[in-house]
Amino acid sequence: MHILVLNGPNLNLLGTREPEIYGHDTLADVEVACRSVADTHGASLAFEQSNHEGTLVDALQAARETTDGVILNAGAYTHTSIALRDAIAAASLPVIELHLSNTHAREGFRHVSMIGPVCVGIIQGFGARGYPLAVEAMIGHLKAGAS
Amino acid sequence: MHILVLNGPNLNLLGTREPEIYGHDTLADVEVACRSVADTHGASLAFEQSNHEGTLVDALQAARETTDGVILNAGAYTHTSIALRDAIAAASLPVIELHLSNTHAREGFRHVSMIGPVCVGIIQGFGARGYPLAVEAMIGHLKAGAS
Amino acid sequence: MHILVLNGPNLNLLGTREPEIYGHDTLADVEVACRSVADTHGASLAFEQSNHEGTLVDALQAARETTDGVILNAGAYTHTSIALRDAIAAASLPVIELHLSNTHAREGFRHVSMIGPVCVGIIQGFGARGYPLAVEAMIGHLKAGAS
Amino acid sequence: MHILVLNGPNLNLLGTREPEIYGHDTLADVEVACRSVADTHGASLAFEQSNHEGTLVDALQAARETTDGVILNAGAYTHTSIALRDAIAAASLPVIELHLSNTHAREGFRHVSMIGPVCVGIIQGFGARGYPLAVEAMIGHLKAGAS
Amino acid sequence: MHILVLNGPNLNLLGTREPEIYGHDTLADVEVACRSVADTHGASLAFEQSNHEGTLVDALQAARETTDGVILNAGAYTHTSIALRDAIAAASLPVIELHLSNTHAREGFRHVSMIGPVCVGIIQGFGARGYPLAVEAMIGHLKAGAS
Amino acid sequence: MHILVLNGPNLNLLGTREPEIYGHDTLADVEVACRSVADTHGASLAFEQSNHEGTLVDALQAARETTDGVILNAGAYTHTSIALRDAIAAASLPVIELHLSNTHAREGFRHVSMIGPVCVGIIQGFGARGYPLAVEAMIGHLKAGAS
Amino acid sequence: MHILVLNGPNLNLLGTREPEIYGHDTLADVEVACRSVADTHGASLAFEQSNHEGTLVDALQAARETTDGVILNAGAYTHTSIALRDAIAAASLPVIELHLSNTHAREGFRHVSMIGPVCVGIIQGFGARGYPLAVEAMIGHLKAGAS
Amino acid sequence: MHILVLNGPNLNLLGTREPEIYGHDTLADVEVACRSVADTHGASLAFEQSNHEGTLVDALQAARETTDGVILNAGAYTHTSIALRDAIAAASLPVIELHLSNTHAREGFRHVSMIGPVCVGIIQGFGARGYPLAVEAMIGHLKAGAS
Amino acid sequence: MHILVLNGPNLNLLGTREPEIYGHDTLADVEVACRSVADTHGASLAFEQSNHEGTLVDALQAARETTDGVILNAGAYTHTSIALRDAIAAASLPVIELHLSNTHAREGFRHVSMIGPVCVGIIQGFGARGYPLAVEAMIGHLKAGAS
Amino acid sequence: MHILVLNGPNLNLLGTREPEIYGHDTLADVEVACRSVADTHGASLAFEQSNHEGTLVDALQAARETTDGVILNAGAYTHTSIALRDAIAAASLPVIELHLSNTHAREGFRHVSMIGPVCVGIIQGFGARGYPLAVEAMIGHLKAGAS
Amino acid sequence: MHILVLNGPNLNLLGTREPEIYGHDTLADVEVACRSVADTHGASLAFEQSNHEGTLVDALQAARETTDGVILNAGAYTHTSIALRDAIAAASLPVIELHLSNTHAREGFRHVSMIGPVCVGIIQGFGARGYPLAVEAMIGHLKAGAS
Amino acid sequence: MHILVLNGPNLNLLGTREPEIYGHDTLADVEVACRSVADTHGASLAFEQSNHEGTLVDALQAARETTDGVILNAGAYTHTSIALRDAIAAASLPVIELHLSNTHAREGFRHVSMIGPVCVGIIQGFGARGYPLAVEAMIGHLKAGAS
Repeated sequence: MHILVLNGPNLNLLGTREPEIYGHDTLADVEVACRSVADTHGASLAFEQSNHEGTLVDALQAARETTDGVILNAGAYTHTSIALRDAIAAASLPVIELHLSNTHAREGFRHVSMIGPVCVGIIQGFGARGYPLAVEAMIGHLKAGAS
Repeated sequence: MHILVLNGPNLNLLGTREPEIYGHDTLADVEVACRSVADTHGASLAFEQSNHEGTLVDALQAARETTDGVILNAGAYTHTSIALRDAIAAASLPVIELHLSNTHAREGFRHVSMIGPVCVGIIQGFGARGYPLAVEAMIGHLKAGAS
Repeated sequence: MHILVLNGPNLNLLGTREPEIYGHDTLADVEVACRSVADTHGASLAFEQSNHEGTLVDALQAARETTDGVILNAGAYTHTSIALRDAIAAASLPVIELHLSNTHAREGFRHVSMIGPVCVGIIQGFGARGYPLAVEAMIGHLKAGAS
Repeated sequence: MHILVLNGPNLNLLGTREPEIYGHDTLADVEVACRSVADTHGASLAFEQSNHEGTLVDALQAARETTDGVILNAGAYTHTSIALRDAIAAASLPVIELHLSNTHAREGFRHVSMIGPVCVGIIQGFGARGYPLAVEAMIGHLKAGAS
Repeated sequence: MHILVLNGPNLNLLGTREPEIYGHDTLADVEVACRSVADTHGASLAFEQSNHEGTLVDALQAARETTDGVILNAGAYTHTSIALRDAIAAASLPVIELHLSNTHAREGFRHVSMIGPVCVGIIQGFGARGYPLAVEAMIGHLKAGAS
Repeated sequence: MHILVLNGPNLNLLGTREPEIYGHDTLADVEVACRSVADTHGASLAFEQSNHEGTLVDALQAARETTDGVILNAGAYTHTSIALRDAIAAASLPVIELHLSNTHAREGFRHVSMIGPVCVGIIQGFGARGYPLAVEAMIGHLKAGAS
Repeated sequence: MHILVLNGPNLNLLGTREPEIYGHDTLADVEVACRSVADTHGASLAFEQSNHEGTLVDALQAARETTDGVILNAGAYTHTSIALRDAIAAASLPVIELHLSNTHAREGFRHVSMIGPVCVGIIQGFGARGYPLAVEAMIGHLKAGAS
Repeated sequence: MHILVLNGPNLNLLGTREPEIYGHDTLADVEVACRSVADTHGASLAFEQSNHEGTLVDALQAARETTDGVILNAGAYTHTSIALRDAIAAASLPVIELHLSNTHAREGFRHVSMIGPVCVGIIQGFGARGYPLAVEAMIGHLKAGAS
Repeated sequence: MHILVLNGPNLNLLGTREPEIYGHDTLADVEVACRSVADTHGASLAFEQSNHEGTLVDALQAARETTDGVILNAGAYTHTSIALRDAIAAASLPVIELHLSNTHAREGFRHVSMIGPVCVGIIQGFGARGYPLAVEAMIGHLKAGAS
Repeated sequence: MHILVLNGPNLNLLGTREPEIYGHDTLADVEVACRSVADTHGASLAFEQSNHEGTLVDALQAARETTDGVILNAGAYTHTSIALRDAIAAASLPVIELHLSNTHAREGFRHVSMIGPVCVGIIQGFGARGYPLAVEAMIGHLKAGAS
Repeated sequence: MHILVLNGPNLNLLGTREPEIYGHDTLADVEVACRSVADTHGASLAFEQSNHEGTLVDALQAARETTDGVILNAGAYTHTSIALRDAIAAASLPVIELHLSNTHAREGFRHVSMIGPVCVGIIQGFGARGYPLAVEAMIGHLKAGAS
Repeated sequence: MHILVLNGPNLNLLGTREPEIYGHDTLADVEVACRSVADTHGASLAFEQSNHEGTLVDALQAARETTDGVILNAGAYTHTSIALRDAIAAASLPVIELHLSNTHAREGFRHVSMIGPVCVGIIQGFGARGYPLAVEAMIGHLKAGAS
């Protein structure tokens, strides 16, 4: 069982950027927490980040061969990227949409998700703790054999 | 640590109602799964359901005295109830919004959540498995001391 | 063949409330007219009214066991209640949406029906006469074996 | 008592066109069913169809002299024709809006009726069975002396 | 100098249809009033009416050869007909949009004119008196050499 | 002269719920202030609260027999309840819409009032002081003989 | 018979401002043409212009005592001024809305008229020639005894 | 304690303008009623009216030095004037928005208030009686020390 | 293999109407170009034009018996005709939507196509050259056995 | 080279009004800073302010004779005044739109500029420093010979 | 004559991605079919694909020097990319917008094309067969000397 | 004091692309003008351009360490990029939004700025001259110690 955790624009700044919204954990801390959950279930984990929409599309396409499920925090591209939506639909993989903050408690343009309708489910608002939660949700989803 | 899992309209039909959307687990099955997670962390759990918006408001008000956090699957009232939103805001309690299905993959009127902006976070699309996940998320949230 | 005629908020005032819009027949008069049609076809009839959205949801859920079809005049809840819509979808029963007045000739917010898309059909604008018409339509629908 | 049943565009194809939506009865079958109801009440019946909006306007204008009530299935023109609306308003005749399918369960542009606000009432979703039901509703309406 | 006065749907009913909105003059009365103005200026006048959008398009196309200006009361088609708009744009003729009633004081869907943007000007709200006024306006326009 | 002061969802929490928005007076304090004004004018007063939309509809219906005017703070139901609007229209009673806060200075969904158009007038933004003000306004209204 | 021709903002620049839209006639030329028509019918004429919305409201109020009808070219205030609309409604006088250009062929914000619904009729698109036309229309309107 | 009652466009016509909407009291009657309430509480009162938006802005600016609170019936400017809104925000004074009629029972464009969000509260629908009510509300507000 | 090329309103003016938008080829020229392509592939071709929406519906209905595919330039009716859409859906024939101009580079109301969703594909913006291109596309489509 | 700096409603309060948004400089300070820049380039400067929309229109009209360019801080009228827009279009003068605050970071109704489309350019968000910046921009614009 | 066929995000998956929507041909198959048409007319062809919006902009800029026309299947970027629109406008080259599927028969957000208004024409819905069709259309366009 | 001037898509074509909109200066010319202003104030300047949204995000992130303020002409990404907005918010740097053209005088989709609300201010419409103006504005901003 192989899981990709894919992070979008500005998430490389995690822990330093607006900590009152996003918390103090860095992306490296998050990766450690995710691996801990994956290890418990004997799953392997890849962890990537890019500020480039095209690179995220590339990564989703590449995941089709090597991955069983994707945790996707698409950041700002969540709200505008049809290219990511198409890449998810094209991949025969379950994808979980993840956000650090509760997007529904923020600006109106963050209430729309272009990728949500092609994802299995959504987890948001739990800060860095949402990541291991999503890994656990994905492992549960894969074990249940649903896709 | 005391947690209330509060269910809204038509969720009493769980397991018999449109299983292709909502799955085959009953609300009793869900309660068992939630208690299992709560027990692991030494938390107690109350589990309620009502088809009446007013009764759900009553329950949220009552929870102010006796509960540390609420998992709320408000069902159809999610999309229209300002009364529930106000009850959540009035309660000094963290609330997690929960849905069995991925509401963003369904009709447009289910994309709007009146309660989301006053909740801590949202978990949706994981079917019955979302409930224990939410209990875990709530316990993590309470342990972290955030509200 | 058992039919439930279910009436929503303020319909208990029928005959006394704004007669220039709703006419002078009372709900009791309407029940008599409905029973007359049902008797002709050897069908039995239940007749209920409530001002409470939750009670109407309860009634639709209860009808799943005991009823072959429902005539639903949801009154004001027609335009806002997703809970009723979900209850109709959850019940494996044909439902006919009924209104005394022609809602399309009134305020804009009455032009939207949240329950219409999950009903078999709609009859409106014929005042109290619409009830026996709807009973007849339901019996025809049930006899034709459609659902 | 004379009633006109007026049918709009593509209804001449009834029984052959998309039977999963519109059923297998032809317009001739429908006419027979309508005449049967009319005969029972000693009413006479005219039955017309046209694909041309202008011809339907002409027919409504002509009906002013010769007819007591009109059953109008305006088909696609229901949603766009102000000319038909004006013709109905100009005729001092009660008109019932009729549809084979439940338009509210279909595409959004079929949820708008330009003619509904000037009609007595609406019957829709009962397939071919809606026609004799509408004739009965019209006769009841005319007997009650309302217009 | 030749002028066409072209009337759309339901205007043949003028004088009998809803006189509280449209007045008691018939279309024949209107034609007499128009000819009186035209005669004064030595202009000739054609006067046509149709309930058919296509026939109005045909008439506008035919006018290209024989007419110097058109007074167009397109009635209900004013608000929906792109075909008439295109026919006006295709004709190298000045067209005046005319209405008996003040459309801006009526339903919202009458506030939109699809043909207005390709007309020289608009005269509305003066009942039957608007016709000779429009003929005078057209003659003034043609004499001034503008198009 | 008998006046009903009817309070909607979450108003039972007054004085404890978000005091920075709603102030520190409890509903009992408010009732005392209202009775004081009523007594001055020799009017009697009923004072009710419910979190249930249906119960508020029931109360308005019951008031038709026993009451001369209603002060209605419908809380969250103000913005969504057509059932309350219909109950007000059905009652032949003057109703004053009341709010503690200035709803126009809050979220957009609180700017819409479904009940406003069928009320005599609106008083909002004066906190608990708005209640006796509304009682005074109602007594003035009733004395003036307007309805 | 006394008529006021009232002109709004920037119309004092007529003849010098953007002549390709508004033509070369000055407001003085327009006044001469209007007086010529008025003289023919034995009517007297007042002619005013202001760039100030409040001054136009003042003028409409003053006209209530002294005037039988108003030709109002409200210019830019046409599209935004509720104060002018209220002043027209308050005056028991027929008002004709006038524009030099065809506002429907210009920017979208000029398609809305706040004053149109309370005016008798509208004349627009005929440049300076529209003024005497409007005077004639007003005299016809007053002679016909309508208001 | 000094209070300014400031009236906007067309309110000088009070008592003569559309009395079925606005009643028969004149602005002078209203002033008397206001002074009566003010006198009771030992407060002084200024009373002004203008049809000019700019003059109302000037008055609000001037009030900053001399006044403790403002009752503002901005009339038509309520719905469009950002200049008045800014003037209210710039003044460090409590302002009460007042209307004679219930604006929510009238045209849609009167449902929007540009000034409401920067006012303390709103009183509307009570005709001339609303003025002394507002003076009383303001005095209560000032006495309570809130601003 | 039989193909119908069906043309809507104002296309009979092709070559004379606004040549800067639509080019100088006449509809007869276009027919020649289409026949040339059809001949090459041994296909037969019918070529019709009408300004009447109803006649276009009639033609599509008639084509069901005699034709393998339709090239439809519905002109102005493209943007408004649900009757044409229904006729296309009723015909079990592949239809290609065609336009001379690029409708997306023109007025906003031309960006909406009511018929597009029930057509196989769309070709637009290539002027008269688009017709033989569409014939070629249809033949390719029919040869590929898709419908 | 003569430049007019024209200021709209409430800008006379600059320095005293909401300094956290608008800063502590007064309009007199601003004038000094502007003159300093103008002097450097040998340009003369007029500096005006009014709370009246009509007076601002008057000033723009007067500037046509005497001025080479206008710096316009229209304040609240920016968002609603078509009269100012028309006055700018009528003047054959380059106009720069100026704001103290960044209107796009404030309420939604401040994101719309009615005058922007007819101005040369826009400078906003730099507080009082924006004025001399705008004078410099205007001088650069005039020297470059553009208009 | 040199033509660039430029493909956007996810088109590299052609033939493997959702074949029920996009068909079984790969992008390599498509390139062969395009070259075949180009060869017939002695035209040369470049064929590129990228998932990166910026790379597509780069490619369009580079094409300005070396290419006579571009076939652009911008995929998901069609609906959102103003950068591509600007790049097309900046290039003095004819561009044809191409889609495999009929975007108007899919989700609403695919009905909007940001690039359509600056393209020569649009071909969509013909699957892989659309590519050689577009090459032929471009060659015809270039031979006709239009741009 | 170090300033970054960051340019988005298609700005590398400056001077050659649509000069009637954007002028004849190249980006190199612009850089020279900026450096001239910076030198005057002893500030250093970096100057970058990219067609890639991700690269612009990277550049803004990198600027956090090395730069005191950013002039950002985000070109087409201005209107759609939430990623850039988030990068600006994440950087603790003042950013000035810059445009060559007056975006409010162009297509509607250019009137929306996703980045404006998180920028200090906006300068647009002055062509290449806007760049040195923005550098001066930034230096003034930094000297004033505001951020």
